[in-house]
Amino acid sequence: MKLNIAVLPGDGIGPEVIAQAEKVLKAIAMEFNHVFTFQHALVGASAIEKTGNPLPEETVNICENADAILFGAIGNAAYDLDPYAKIRPEQGLLRLRKSLGLYTNIRPVIAYEDLLNKSSLKKKQITNTNILIYRELTGGIYFGEKKLSDDGNTASDICEYTRFEIERIAHLAFKAAQSRKRKLTLVDKANAMESSRLWRRVVQEMAPQYPNVQLNFMYIDNAAMELILNPKQFDVILTENMFGDILSEEASVIVGSIGLLASASLGDKHAMFEPIHGAYSKVANKGIANPIASILSAAMLLEHFGLDDEAALVREGVDKSLKLHITTPDLNRKYDNITTTKVGDFIEDFINHPDETNLN
Amino acid sequence: MKLNIAVLPGDGIGPEVIAQAEKVLKAIAMEFNHVFTFQHALVGASAIEKTGNPLPEETVNICENADAILFGAIGNAAYDLDPYAKIRPEQGLLRLRKSLGLYTNIRPVIAYEDLLNKSSLKKKQITNTNILIYRELTGGIYFGEKKLSDDGNTASDICEYTRFEIERIAHLAFKAAQSRKRKLTLVDKANAMESSRLWRRVVQEMAPQYPNVQLNFMYIDNAAMELILNPKQFDVILTENMFGDILSEEASVIVGSIGLLASASLGDKHAMFEPIHGAYSKVANKGIANPIASILSAAMLLEHFGLDDEAALVREGVDKSLKLHITTPDLNRKYDNITTTKVGDFIEDFINHPDETNLN
Ligand SMILES: CC(C)[C@H](C(=O)O)[C@@H](O)C(=O)O
Ligand SMILES: CC(C)[C@H](C(=O)O)[C@@H](O)C(=O)O
Repeated sequence: MKLNIAVLPGDGIGPEVIAQAEKVLKAIAMEFNHVFTFQHALVGASAIEKTGNPLPEETVNICENADAILFGAIGNAAYDLDPYAKIRPEQGLLRLRKSLGLYTNIRPVIAYEDLLNKSSLKKKQITNTNILIYRELTGGIYFGEKKLSDDGNTASDICEYTRFEIERIAHLAFKAAQSRKRKLTLVDKANAMESSRLWRRVVQEMAPQYPNVQLNFMYIDNAAMELILNPKQFDVILTENMFGDILSEEASVIVGSIGLLASASLGDKHAMFEPIHGAYSKVANKGIANPIASILSAAMLLEHFGLDDEAALVREGVDKSLKLHITTPDLNRKYDNITTTKVGDFIEDFINHPDETNLN
Repeated sequence: MKLNIAVLPGDGIGPEVIAQAEKVLKAIAMEFNHVFTFQHALVGASAIEKTGNPLPEETVNICENADAILFGAIGNAAYDLDPYAKIRPEQGLLRLRKSLGLYTNIRPVIAYEDLLNKSSLKKKQITNTNILIYRELTGGIYFGEKKLSDDGNTASDICEYTRFEIERIAHLAFKAAQSRKRKLTLVDKANAMESSRLWRRVVQEMAPQYPNVQLNFMYIDNAAMELILNPKQFDVILTENMFGDILSEEASVIVGSIGLLASASLGDKHAMFEPIHGAYSKVANKGIANPIASILSAAMLLEHFGLDDEAALVREGVDKSLKLHITTPDLNRKYDNITTTKVGDFIEDFINHPDETNLN
């Protein structure tokens, strides 16, 4: 297969972790005789620095013409501390999601057998947790009209949703549930938000089309508690943009490190793959960032194109690295000389020689 | 002291748990020669049932003329499943908060020594956690304009904040931090919301007035993770209405049961005290609801009026009940014949005879 992949490393640890994902994709291409080409482009704070624009025109063009996009992370501390900045790194990511129509963000949360003791939660709490979060990604409060009064003393954001926006992602979530444990939980705040009531109505109306899926509803405050108390109760979670952002980052505590969580952002024409973690400028260039979230995002990319054997090999490599403690310090305080690159190298080696690699 | 207390038990388990809090307050009045009078009023689904209105005029009058309000819980499953209902139990609570101007909601999150093993989190994670959440309660997306298009296909909510609304609660949060570990964390989503950027600006500008308080900022998605990963890093958390709702319910996992979390809602003229848990209609009238959150809310009521010895005695009674496992089944699967009323009775007894009570 020929795939033209746009690579947007972004800021902070983005370039380091994305380099490992790219390396892994190259190894897969070699092993399976695919032709993957990679086109790098700027986004975020590094794009602002070089072009004044967090999402340069050229980046949009490269992405629009690519088969898939591999995205790192954006943001840095200077912007976080400056709530007056008009041009911001996040705009690069948010505008990209919007302009490519990436309305469905899929975030798997899987408790790895070999990492159960790394979690802040008790082992019995999390064993066998396997959740798929469907987060709406191009609507809600992120993209509604924003206002700041002339005197700077009043600010507002609008959270708006349409039936169309809800239906298109809800269909995908129902279908995902059908192929899994057949349970779909809509998370909203229907006791306080009109837009949440619309979510509840639309999803309720759709339910008869998926008679074998058990649909239930949960308020976001309650879900934030239940996700920790009893994560195994969830199969597919469907939710709006902001609630999905909160729940998926929270869910990382189940898995043991946010450095493990991958995501796919899908639209009708484009597909982007990115770790859910941020740019962590503080730890950039130290070789300690966990590349697994990016490498698993690459596996999701392969699956998106039906390259299931290829993806399975990547996942096997990841599993093996975890089993053998070839992991960065977020997971492995004892062996903290294992760098970002070493983890990538190990998985690359595994792909090249799946039967031999064993550093035990 | 003479106190005229409005009692709004509400729905579900509300009446059961509030009855215990009232009993405890009566015992305190006896013991310390105070005159507490209690006036009961309707709110929520039970008020809709009897009057068609979730917040009858009479209830508002009683609350306006009371020195303090003791509130139970509102809501029931029928309304949760009906996103079309125009009259809703929650309106009773939300309108009350707004009309009494209760803009500051204070939610303490304290890991009890005797309950460390009840938490889903590992013991070492939570030992010594002591967080005070300051949640803005009369602004934000709960109270901004809500719209539903005529065809019912588009719905929206506005999240608006003014400098005035932010400053008045932020001053209280800074002051609380001054009397504690001197750390204030503002939780917002300044990388996506204009209103959050206003929060960040205003609080940043106020910081020089509190030079001994260490101010830091955290995005809500990150905070939802950090609250579980490392709850001890927090002292006072300041946040807007919706984020406070989510974080405080999530924080209950630290303490071991949401049935333990109390809150105070304060305005310039009025003060209301309520457990943070909901109405749980499913378990109502079974005698298994945990009354501690309500009893601790009563302790916060006493403290609000400077009755610190009285409050301390209530808290001692609660501590003792926990130490002796006189607790409802949410905390105590072994002795699940201990009812809501028995827990209240134990604490009442303790207040009457603090030196004798020992059911060991
Ligand atoms: C950087 C930020 C705007 C972004 C979001 O909130 O969507 C991030 O947290 C994410 O989850 O991808
Ligand atoms: C019942 C609901 C509207 C309410 C809220 O969201 O404020 C509740 O969750 C709370 O925290 O008091």
